Amino acid sequence: MALIHHPVMDKNGETIAAAVTALDLHDIARAAKTYGVDTFYVVTPLTDQQDLVRRIIGHWASGAGARYNPDRQAALALIRLMPTLAAVLDDMAEKHGHGPQTVATSAQMADGNLTFAGLRDLARQARPLLLLFGTAWGLAPEMLTQADHRLAPIAGHGDYNHLSVRSAVSIILDRMLG
Amino acid sequence: MALIHHPVMDKNGETIAAAVTALDLHDIARAAKTYGVDTFYVVTPLTDQQDLVRRIIGHWASGAGARYNPDRQAALALIRLMPTLAAVLDDMAEKHGHGPQTVATSAQMADGNLTFAGLRDLARQARPLLLLFGTAWGLAPEMLTQADHRLAPIAGHGDYNHLSVRSAVSIILDRMLG
Repeated sequence: MALIHHPVMDKNGETIAAAVTALDLHDIARAAKTYGVDTFYVVTPLTDQQDLVRRIIGHWASGAGARYNPDRQAALALIRLMPTLAAVLDDMAEKHGHGPQTVATSAQMADGNLTFAGLRDLARQARPLLLLFGTAWGLAPEMLTQADHRLAPIAGHGDYNHLSVRSAVSIILDRMLG
Repeated sequence: MALIHHPVMDKNGETIAAAVTALDLHDIARAAKTYGVDTFYVVTPLTDQQDLVRRIIGHWASGAGARYNPDRQAALALIRLMPTLAAVLDDMAEKHGHGPQTVATSAQMADGNLTFAGLRDLARQARPLLLLFGTAWGLAPEMLTQADHRLAPIAGHGDYNHLSVRSAVSIILDRMLG
């Protein structure tokens, strides 16, 4: 799976590069580890944000954090830092012999073509598979159209659908692999 | 549902009162609103932590936050601040005419007596129903034994099960109501 910080949308629908949130890395790495995700790609082209990701991982991998909480270290060890989605695709192609099928997620998906049942089937059949999650107000439109599959939004109860990316990742991994 | 900050455990299994985390309130309120939860009780006996909760709610309810993000306001409006679980039970008894059935959650549940299928049935039949979630390293043992039901832990893939409370709430609400 990949957590994309660029290109994503701000609240007005403009394309931005979002800042990295430490708790996104922690919560999503823990969920990824719980559900057996192979690699958690953190994608940002901004070098200062890349430095922040390295500091967070380093603290828990070898510093006081590793002694304080070894479970956290096991989760954050799934993270691979990448500048772009293209670099993620190259990395997976090198590792698996061919590139992944990609699944874009969004709460505002207008033309979703993949149900959660379809996602479960895909998880059994398509190897490798890459789930794409957007920070801020979600993946930019070109990320949605370029993906092989577009997952239907999570439906709760009623019209309100403003989950955090941390919650959305947790629910989607559980529906797919739980 | 209730997010309990006391009595919960620290990493050594000692009973503590945990600090309130702003992001817990935001993420869990958004998930609660998405899944149609009636009230999100935030339970802490510490007056400085109660003040913090009031400041967070106030910022998004009437300050610059309300203008910036009205969706957030709708979610945080579900929060009711309470000093103890007993006060929550009293509040629900007053509202519904009788107290709730309670369901304790824990990743370390040794004697879970409620499956997720059972929880879905309970959600349809038992009104009112109160889900209990612990911060820090989870609900203290007496909170588990005093509850009417103890929900089986979330099983992922393998032995690793260290979800954040934000992830656990999201997954449990989705399995119960999604």
